[in-house]
Amino acid sequence: MKDQSCGKLTRLGRIFDHQSGRALVVALDHGLVGNLPGIEDLPSTLDKVVQAQPNAVVVSAGAMSRLSPTIRGQCGIILTIDTFLSSSIPRSDAMGEAHRLLASAEEALALGADAVKVFLIGGQEDLDAFADNVVRVGQTAQMCNRWGLPLIVEPTLWGSKVAREQKNDPELVKHMCRIALESGADVLKIPNPGPEVVTQLVNDTPCPILIMGGSKVDSEELMIEGVREAIEAGADGIVYGQNVWQRDDPAALIKKLSRIIHSK
Amino acid sequence: MKDQSCGKLTRLGRIFDHQSGRALVVALDHGLVGNLPGIEDLPSTLDKVVQAQPNAVVVSAGAMSRLSPTIRGQCGIILTIDTFLSSSIPRSDAMGEAHRLLASAEEALALGADAVKVFLIGGQEDLDAFADNVVRVGQTAQMCNRWGLPLIVEPTLWGSKVAREQKNDPELVKHMCRIALESGADVLKIPNPGPEVVTQLVNDTPCPILIMGGSKVDSEELMIEGVREAIEAGADGIVYGQNVWQRDDPAALIKKLSRIIHSK
Amino acid sequence: MKDQSCGKLTRLGRIFDHQSGRALVVALDHGLVGNLPGIEDLPSTLDKVVQAQPNAVVVSAGAMSRLSPTIRGQCGIILTIDTFLSSSIPRSDAMGEAHRLLASAEEALALGADAVKVFLIGGQEDLDAFADNVVRVGQTAQMCNRWGLPLIVEPTLWGSKVAREQKNDPELVKHMCRIALESGADVLKIPNPGPEVVTQLVNDTPCPILIMGGSKVDSEELMIEGVREAIEAGADGIVYGQNVWQRDDPAALIKKLSRIIHSK
Amino acid sequence: MKDQSCGKLTRLGRIFDHQSGRALVVALDHGLVGNLPGIEDLPSTLDKVVQAQPNAVVVSAGAMSRLSPTIRGQCGIILTIDTFLSSSIPRSDAMGEAHRLLASAEEALALGADAVKVFLIGGQEDLDAFADNVVRVGQTAQMCNRWGLPLIVEPTLWGSKVAREQKNDPELVKHMCRIALESGADVLKIPNPGPEVVTQLVNDTPCPILIMGGSKVDSEELMIEGVREAIEAGADGIVYGQNVWQRDDPAALIKKLSRIIHSK
Amino acid sequence: MKDQSCGKLTRLGRIFDHQSGRALVVALDHGLVGNLPGIEDLPSTLDKVVQAQPNAVVVSAGAMSRLSPTIRGQCGIILTIDTFLSSSIPRSDAMGEAHRLLASAEEALALGADAVKVFLIGGQEDLDAFADNVVRVGQTAQMCNRWGLPLIVEPTLWGSKVAREQKNDPELVKHMCRIALESGADVLKIPNPGPEVVTQLVNDTPCPILIMGGSKVDSEELMIEGVREAIEAGADGIVYGQNVWQRDDPAALIKKLSRIIHSK
Repeated sequence: MKDQSCGKLTRLGRIFDHQSGRALVVALDHGLVGNLPGIEDLPSTLDKVVQAQPNAVVVSAGAMSRLSPTIRGQCGIILTIDTFLSSSIPRSDAMGEAHRLLASAEEALALGADAVKVFLIGGQEDLDAFADNVVRVGQTAQMCNRWGLPLIVEPTLWGSKVAREQKNDPELVKHMCRIALESGADVLKIPNPGPEVVTQLVNDTPCPILIMGGSKVDSEELMIEGVREAIEAGADGIVYGQNVWQRDDPAALIKKLSRIIHSK
Repeated sequence: MKDQSCGKLTRLGRIFDHQSGRALVVALDHGLVGNLPGIEDLPSTLDKVVQAQPNAVVVSAGAMSRLSPTIRGQCGIILTIDTFLSSSIPRSDAMGEAHRLLASAEEALALGADAVKVFLIGGQEDLDAFADNVVRVGQTAQMCNRWGLPLIVEPTLWGSKVAREQKNDPELVKHMCRIALESGADVLKIPNPGPEVVTQLVNDTPCPILIMGGSKVDSEELMIEGVREAIEAGADGIVYGQNVWQRDDPAALIKKLSRIIHSK
Repeated sequence: MKDQSCGKLTRLGRIFDHQSGRALVVALDHGLVGNLPGIEDLPSTLDKVVQAQPNAVVVSAGAMSRLSPTIRGQCGIILTIDTFLSSSIPRSDAMGEAHRLLASAEEALALGADAVKVFLIGGQEDLDAFADNVVRVGQTAQMCNRWGLPLIVEPTLWGSKVAREQKNDPELVKHMCRIALESGADVLKIPNPGPEVVTQLVNDTPCPILIMGGSKVDSEELMIEGVREAIEAGADGIVYGQNVWQRDDPAALIKKLSRIIHSK
Repeated sequence: MKDQSCGKLTRLGRIFDHQSGRALVVALDHGLVGNLPGIEDLPSTLDKVVQAQPNAVVVSAGAMSRLSPTIRGQCGIILTIDTFLSSSIPRSDAMGEAHRLLASAEEALALGADAVKVFLIGGQEDLDAFADNVVRVGQTAQMCNRWGLPLIVEPTLWGSKVAREQKNDPELVKHMCRIALESGADVLKIPNPGPEVVTQLVNDTPCPILIMGGSKVDSEELMIEGVREAIEAGADGIVYGQNVWQRDDPAALIKKLSRIIHSK
Repeated sequence: MKDQSCGKLTRLGRIFDHQSGRALVVALDHGLVGNLPGIEDLPSTLDKVVQAQPNAVVVSAGAMSRLSPTIRGQCGIILTIDTFLSSSIPRSDAMGEAHRLLASAEEALALGADAVKVFLIGGQEDLDAFADNVVRVGQTAQMCNRWGLPLIVEPTLWGSKVAREQKNDPELVKHMCRIALESGADVLKIPNPGPEVVTQLVNDTPCPILIMGGSKVDSEELMIEGVREAIEAGADGIVYGQNVWQRDDPAALIKKLSRIIHSK
């Protein structure tokens, strides 16, 4: 991260731990596509999370102004400025795929963000939908450069042209990461492709890589083990949501994960 | 509402009563999709309504400049800046679903608005129509942040993919409210989901919730009883239209409702 | 005021009473040139004033964001967006005369103002200082037209070229009022030139005229009598500061003045 | 005028008579530098003037929004968008010379103007003051070209470096007219240099020339005779103020002048 | 601070401790007017300071990009965006007084600042110099409102019209604080006026007050005692420079001061 501009270096220092260089991030932006158990009362869940001192949280730009009195700058703040919708009826069967920007990097800055996060979604039925998503990443990256605001990109293969079993295919994940990088990502957030691919990606990728949690894993132990593996494989941290706040004691879990992530 | 910016705090104080913290709002923007008995002579109906001192009225941005000599800043002013059209022949059978912005937050501000209102419509046949509606809410929210103008969002399930009997389904209503919030709503206007769901939503939602009236309920007593129930369940006020100005004495009714809403 | 644009008409309706058409305004912007007994603890004094329900208050644009939780839109808000300094040592002997704009009409709008107020100061030693002041009024007026924001101008003869005994000379006051009007004022705030001149000015001037209070008059009775005379002479209201909040019970006085101003 | 752009041609058609090609304009913008008998109650004087159907009136941009209900588009509207101040005490002995723009061509357009008028003042003590005035004319001209708004320039020799007896010197007047033209004037408004010079100027100048009235001439007959002479010498019309509305029956006079100007 | 906008609330949370609500800030921006023992090797001094974990540091906007790899977002960052020069030969006898802005709030934001700091200097020989300084504060405040960036103002009486023994006169300090507030300050940084005046100011001032250190006090014990007194009198923290990094062990001192400031 040493080669970043002044603003980006400063703001990344709010997200990545100064000792370990790694980050434990908790995502709470799922409401963009509807309610979810665990964050129905978002300010209350957020409060518990912030008290446990993760390095940063991810929240939507739209909800940020109401959430700021809870966060009060106590941890890094990553704003999700886009949305990916698959149905016009929330939390229903997929009808298609629609990615949109809801806010700009400038607006995120005025809200006090330390970084913005956008999707780079591959595999759409409609090539233009993919191309327009790439443009949204590229243009946000240029605006982020202007303002010294780090850009976190989450490359996925959620498009319906990619079969379910291929969505975590290491080669495809690596391709998507590369496009994200070439489009201007400062940090990548990716699904866990397993320790080997993590190591490969970390070696090949000139920017930090954060592993995401996805849907809730039943066994907390297995989930924690996955985090340990990823970190040992070289990951720069994690962005976990449901796997944190859908458990009984999110605060205790955050402290446990923190030790794993920052220990080495 | 304490955590709002200077401009939003000031303008919300023009809509919500300083003692009770609640709002009695009368909607008169129905002409955006055609004529309706009771508002055929809009300035005259509006005059009666304003004389009865509701906290605020809802009118369309397009008609506002002609209506301002009637309102003269005597109550809060909420401008509807979008439209939802279902037929190219007014008040005819639905042909489809089309949501559009007619004015911007900046234009509403120049007209003297205290807040703007937009729809967030779910259940469209076309996913892009839904996604574009979410974008209109999100981008209006950012502009409203810039100018200190409160944004009222009305989440509905008017899209034809949602069966008539499901349009007030509590789970769907809650999902839609959540999307509205994450997209930047400062206040929600929702159909009445019954006292229990109102209480749940009020507890979970970090912003005021206003209950809408919908089509005229035959019995005035039943209608009033519904308002009382909603307020007792925790609602922050109402936005009623036809149920006010399609009755014989709107002014008397407004005063009656005002006592119910602001008494406690 | 009937002929104003939509935004101006709406916002003037927040300052002038709907029944009497007149305004009781309390000024609390004196801190722009240093402390003053009675407003040392500004939020507390402001709170008392607002509770007594004047039509509007005048505060500085710089202090507004901290004052908004006290005002909460409970009365009209007029923002002073300029300053007139006569010494580089606060509240000391005059060294010269310096007028400056500190904020723009757009910024006042974002803060939730119902109007902005600027000085038009005559009698400077330096003609350019006068001309630049006229320009600040004229250009602010144009911006106010664009945004539907009323402009209140306070013409004075504070420049040191005008002898003390001439500063309220009726002819000079009328000239200054005229220049203020031609430069775009929507409302005038003037020193009390006595009932006869008030009547003349009101007859000749196609905009509301508010009488200012100036330094504290010892006798409260005399002060109140002056207000009564001005209102009977045709003034559209008053803008009083020290004469309100340097007394023992500002709230009681405001209510007394309110009856005088709005009774007829 | 044939070679004008679409917007300028259309708007000049609101000022110059379609039959005679000439214009009778009444100026009422004198309040920019203080009060004056005859326009103390400006709306009332303006009303009488407009009823008598001159081709156009000249009013200040600042006062225009309040005057529009009187004019209501019944005649051409020329907005004065600058001011020339000679003292910081209105209508007092000259202290110096200060020219300023108070509004822009764009703002005049938004107010409904058919043309804007600015001074081009020669003879200042300070060369920079002259140069800055030329710039204001030149830049306004460019803006007027962009928007199709005619620019009327009034070249004068009011600067104190020019002796009183030289202020109407034909050679100097012709020089100033030429600079005005080269700076972008579409129409010139000049003091009456006598019939011979008028004829010369009209022959040499590729734009309409309007003769101004100046201070009140005691004899109405002499004054009328001067107008007749100027028109016969080729002038394209007049811009008269005090010589119209400081007389007993401005309406009758306007009709008399109109016959003279448009008869031939 | 509860009433701040989202961006300001978030960024103030980077400067004021979440538990105590107070701030220990170390200033290192003295190089703007020349070299000084203790910060000749600025990155090295800054590194020691940052390691000791103060709440924030003050550095110049001009040097920030070179300092960011040392700070890395490990503490709050306040950028000094102006300069006050008294001689054209650095660190020489005063020739006059010149205040200038070197950077804007927008530029500070792009560098990653959590707040900007400007002087409000009273007592200049030239009134215009004072008025222009007030304008710089006022206009920076408006820009800071737009971007959610806190504005720290340091009112002083450094102008040569104020005698040395009056520069900390409590009445003058209070006047200057008041002007700073009305011009838009979010936080004040003031010389230590003694515990009684601190208590008065804290009670009257609706924003945090930080006490500055000034020139090095010989006795470290006395200096520490002064901090303890100010905090006990109600100050919201300190901004100390030479008194920190001109001592033998700045890091140890910072930890000692931290205990005093955050203990209660």
